[in-house]
Amino acid sequence: MVVQWGILGCAGIARKFCASVSRIDNAVIAAVASRTAGKADDFIAENCPGSKAYASYEELLADASIEAVYIPVPTSVKTELVLKVAAAKKHVLVEKPLASAADVKLMIDACKAAGVQFMDNTMFLHNARQDSIKSVLSDGGMFGDLRHVDSTFSIDCANDEAWAADNIRMKRSLEPLGCLGDLGWYNVRLTLWAFQYSLPTSVSCTYVEHTEEMVPTHLMAQMRFGNKTGSFMCSFKSAFRNSAEFVGSKAVLSLEDFVVTGKLDAASYKVTQTTFGAKDETFPLVTLKDEELKTGVQHAKLVETFSGLVASGKVDETWPEQTYQTQLVLDAMVKSAEQGGMWISLQ
Amino acid sequence: MVVQWGILGCAGIARKFCASVSRIDNAVIAAVASRTAGKADDFIAENCPGSKAYASYEELLADASIEAVYIPVPTSVKTELVLKVAAAKKHVLVEKPLASAADVKLMIDACKAAGVQFMDNTMFLHNARQDSIKSVLSDGGMFGDLRHVDSTFSIDCANDEAWAADNIRMKRSLEPLGCLGDLGWYNVRLTLWAFQYSLPTSVSCTYVEHTEEMVPTHLMAQMRFGNKTGSFMCSFKSAFRNSAEFVGSKAVLSLEDFVVTGKLDAASYKVTQTTFGAKDETFPLVTLKDEELKTGVQHAKLVETFSGLVASGKVDETWPEQTYQTQLVLDAMVKSAEQGGMWISLQ
Repeated sequence: MVVQWGILGCAGIARKFCASVSRIDNAVIAAVASRTAGKADDFIAENCPGSKAYASYEELLADASIEAVYIPVPTSVKTELVLKVAAAKKHVLVEKPLASAADVKLMIDACKAAGVQFMDNTMFLHNARQDSIKSVLSDGGMFGDLRHVDSTFSIDCANDEAWAADNIRMKRSLEPLGCLGDLGWYNVRLTLWAFQYSLPTSVSCTYVEHTEEMVPTHLMAQMRFGNKTGSFMCSFKSAFRNSAEFVGSKAVLSLEDFVVTGKLDAASYKVTQTTFGAKDETFPLVTLKDEELKTGVQHAKLVETFSGLVASGKVDETWPEQTYQTQLVLDAMVKSAEQGGMWISLQ
Repeated sequence: MVVQWGILGCAGIARKFCASVSRIDNAVIAAVASRTAGKADDFIAENCPGSKAYASYEELLADASIEAVYIPVPTSVKTELVLKVAAAKKHVLVEKPLASAADVKLMIDACKAAGVQFMDNTMFLHNARQDSIKSVLSDGGMFGDLRHVDSTFSIDCANDEAWAADNIRMKRSLEPLGCLGDLGWYNVRLTLWAFQYSLPTSVSCTYVEHTEEMVPTHLMAQMRFGNKTGSFMCSFKSAFRNSAEFVGSKAVLSLEDFVVTGKLDAASYKVTQTTFGAKDETFPLVTLKDEELKTGVQHAKLVETFSGLVASGKVDETWPEQTYQTQLVLDAMVKSAEQGGMWISLQ
């Protein structure tokens, strides 16, 4: 079965979705809707030739042939739109972040009531590398117990004046969470994933730089899971980077490209162990594992998995639950930042 | 001129000092003192054959031929000993950390009054790699401006029950700062070094694990330098690791072994830049620089530099000032930890 997808809006990020659909067999982009006449036509010509163009979201939602919808619109208008899509009984793949945990609850309840799948578009979770990493993290002999997850996700775009002035990520009315929503979302998700979606006991976040409207542009955040920890930096003003490190009690697993891979269909990671040299004059680094896996394209895998769920008629509740937890953490981080970095309890 | 060194105490860490002296031409270990009879003899036989053994610190300090003294004793007894060494008008190389910034002030004032050099035993500062890194950090074209310094220094020793029960690093009466003093000292120093010893505007620290006596064994800390930042994790319970990363506005410099190098006489670092691939489907990592420098042995360099200062008759005030700043930051971090991770202002 080939799932018929619709796209609501022609945001730049939707190009990636089209590229992914073009790589798989169980999905097709049947229609694209834009509120601006002509924009959908241009988008289709460039990204998914043959799709139908609709001049409004409502027309696309009224098309009974569309089974699943991808929503790449700004965060401030996502909630309303997701609720409309669910009401139309279409499955929902939505861009991150979301407006608030309360809004996520509304959305996932609506999707549940409608019997449709809800998933956020966090690609890396669908990369086969995650399974391989998980096998290391649970290898007590080599890795020990996971103690700390550190990650960095930053882009230097806001150092460009034109970007800083115009990009939606800098505007409270469109993307109120700034770099926390756009980048920190992934840092949080990776950390939750590593600790098997146990909610952190408490979190802390400090906005080091922000716009006049308090949209964060450079921040540091921390998470506690009892006596285990996570930390990250995310920024619109630091060099582009998406690295992560899992520190066990015995070894360290690190990767350079945890959000989007450096190669299209392969992904790598390293497991290392530092050792004491003679008279502690040196700390030699030993590589225990240096993996490069043939993984396929992670985003294509996401759409394929989602389409497979649609085709199966079964809803997987773990995906909306993960979205909800991620947003709960982000909301607590915003609260912490508003209180000068105070630790905010989540349990 | 060959500087005549004395060592006060036979702590295991002093073996490294002996190894370093054996590698250079302008220093010799003339005497070793221990409060336990026979211990100095054993230490000398193993580490510096030919040195004189003294059965008390006072006897060594009374030896007019000794010009410089290395002090590897526990933190709780360092202050008194450094003041005695200064009073004996001998130059002072002391192990880190120190008891408090107030104590550091006492020590450096005493050394200044006596006209002797004061330096703490932070080896990595004397590694030629630091100069090479500095040249990258000040290369606006390639690196941009330094935005963030992240580092990890952890050892897993406290997962060993015998170590946890006996080691001085776990005992408040000997090393009250636990992993913050033993490991975090280096994280703080590296960050101060990177920001050219401007004092942070504020710092935050959270003890995630600590002994019953509140000696920290796993912690996270953050530093703000206006809108630039530093962060680190240090731990006695996580895998051995001493990595660091400097995030510029354009590129990232990373090293795996910032405290003690993996190889004895060489040290490396990498400068990388993440880029956008077609349709943002990939974030390819580009290596701008992959350096391995022939550096010599960093600790030997420290002793050589110190001995050179002694021989020159000139005192370099930058070393005690760096020690003072490092301890000021540690003291503020302890204060922050006592207040649940609150940001503590330093300016």
